[in-house]
Amino acid sequence: MSTPEFHAIAPISWSDEHDCLLLLDQTLLPDEETWLHCRQVEDVAAAIKRLSVRGAPAIGVSAAYGLVVGLHGASDDDFRRRFDETSETLGATRPTAVNLRWALEKGREVFEAHADEGVEACRAKLLEWAKDLQSRDVQTNRTMGDNGAHLFQEGDRVLTHCNAGALATAGYGTAVGVIASAFREGRLGQVWVDETRPLLQGARLTAWEMEKLGIPYRLVTDSSVGALMSRGLVDRVVVGADRVAANGDAANKIGTYTVAVLANRHGVPFYVAAPRSTIDPRTPTGNEIPIEIRDSDEVTAFGGHRVSPRETEAMNFAFDVTPNELIAGIITEVGVLEAPYEESIRRALAMD
Amino acid sequence: MSTPEFHAIAPISWSDEHDCLLLLDQTLLPDEETWLHCRQVEDVAAAIKRLSVRGAPAIGVSAAYGLVVGLHGASDDDFRRRFDETSETLGATRPTAVNLRWALEKGREVFEAHADEGVEACRAKLLEWAKDLQSRDVQTNRTMGDNGAHLFQEGDRVLTHCNAGALATAGYGTAVGVIASAFREGRLGQVWVDETRPLLQGARLTAWEMEKLGIPYRLVTDSSVGALMSRGLVDRVVVGADRVAANGDAANKIGTYTVAVLANRHGVPFYVAAPRSTIDPRTPTGNEIPIEIRDSDEVTAFGGHRVSPRETEAMNFAFDVTPNELIAGIITEVGVLEAPYEESIRRALAMD
Repeated sequence: MSTPEFHAIAPISWSDEHDCLLLLDQTLLPDEETWLHCRQVEDVAAAIKRLSVRGAPAIGVSAAYGLVVGLHGASDDDFRRRFDETSETLGATRPTAVNLRWALEKGREVFEAHADEGVEACRAKLLEWAKDLQSRDVQTNRTMGDNGAHLFQEGDRVLTHCNAGALATAGYGTAVGVIASAFREGRLGQVWVDETRPLLQGARLTAWEMEKLGIPYRLVTDSSVGALMSRGLVDRVVVGADRVAANGDAANKIGTYTVAVLANRHGVPFYVAAPRSTIDPRTPTGNEIPIEIRDSDEVTAFGGHRVSPRETEAMNFAFDVTPNELIAGIITEVGVLEAPYEESIRRALAMD
Repeated sequence: MSTPEFHAIAPISWSDEHDCLLLLDQTLLPDEETWLHCRQVEDVAAAIKRLSVRGAPAIGVSAAYGLVVGLHGASDDDFRRRFDETSETLGATRPTAVNLRWALEKGREVFEAHADEGVEACRAKLLEWAKDLQSRDVQTNRTMGDNGAHLFQEGDRVLTHCNAGALATAGYGTAVGVIASAFREGRLGQVWVDETRPLLQGARLTAWEMEKLGIPYRLVTDSSVGALMSRGLVDRVVVGADRVAANGDAANKIGTYTVAVLANRHGVPFYVAAPRSTIDPRTPTGNEIPIEIRDSDEVTAFGGHRVSPRETEAMNFAFDVTPNELIAGIITEVGVLEAPYEESIRRALAMD
């Protein structure tokens, strides 16, 4: 096989020509590759809310561009108010992924540093910063990939949950980036992709990425993970994260905790792959991570068709929290962090 | 609320008028209540294979009637051959549920006892036996329900996986029967119904039964069970079984083992509700239980619409095995069996 184009998948793009943000509409994958043109901040916010763009790093980068989008057409008189409103609108989209808040705070620093230059110059600086954030995210993921690939032994069958791939980032992916790097280094046997109900990010998005990358994989239902592990068919688990607390507790897509508990029972190492922008030193433990509850009909309906009785109500937690003791290592761009996590995280965040 | 008709749901019926077996087509629930008319053994076998009728006790009762169906139009000269073929056809439908084999063996005893009376008399005896089996299954379930309800404390929030309800039996249900009895005795707080991918027996069938019974419930994805338990929202788990080995290891719908591991971690009692006909003394442990692997497209497609990439292959284990050490008790019609299960099971099977 020729060397695959590992970061060919990029779900976020800025169009200088149209002065707008382009987002690959992930709700339509794998059937359609349709790009949303976001010309107003409401377009960006709606895309984040409805999961057209999703994954903590991708949300962060989209929000950075969203700040630029929000200043479109602003005047020197009102652009501070517009910036505040834009930031507020974006910040209200989803509560769990900390990269969103992180990007908005970094963006405000850029804004404040250039606000006295007037709206056009300030917007240009924000755009430059957002583009830089995007390209650095890809580079971060490639470094994480290399760091994580070293953990693999030849022939490893690795399981991943949800999609922490190129689609969840500016490109290359976090957990899937690690898997791609291990594959490129010839250490990967096979990937188990769990479907990740209710929105099937595994079946739709990770499977799609595996196809694009030419990585051997099999799809399973979320509830098959126990059976796979009890049969000795899983050597390793790598997942992404939406927020890692200061003590290493990690929030990720609902079902991640279940996989971690099973891995623990079966002695399968369970890794979280997350850039430092996903680690929040201001969240002491997983108990303080806000968990989004999404609409009941994501569970009760499927592709617009109701599957359960008309009266059925679902409880739809979007994320769960995996406690640090179940995590064998946190793969970051500055190395693989190990327990005790309070200390390894503090050191990692203090690095340049 | 008035007393609900607890065994109003009955998925299997014999029509004397049309001399055929009627099966509620469970693949169409909850949208449509359509009855299949099975006039040939192939109709019964196909209904079992495609899960129009499913659940270990319901498969057993359907197979019993299937033996009667198979003798339709047989002559005194060929009815033994027809019986053998019928039994073989039915026995080849699904490998895991032991009630199927159990019913076919009991049916053969009836056949042998009356074969010398000629085909019509023998068929009449088989029909009488099948009807008796059906009504005894309902009675068994009611007794199991009472036995299991005693385990509940007031306000208990109970989780069940898949559908071990009236639809999985001749009526009343095993795990759902226990839940219904606990509800009737005023001890039930709420039921957590997990959807049970890939075929959504929880979302489609158990939710439908909850509505019919007026029992308060909430639907969750399979992968939410860990989050529910870590939040202290589950007091008890009750599931059915497709086969219980002589040592108490229990095969049940894929995902059951995962629920059991989570229950174990969170100190939530995990019960299996199963009649003695589901216990197989000839299967020493769970390792010897054959696990059916079903079509990939049950996972990759949904309602006829493909959700994953065209090339995606799934691994679709239909069942998994929960080891006896994770089971707090096996609720049967002769009481709640406890560890050591080899002994309690031997005693239970020896009772009249």
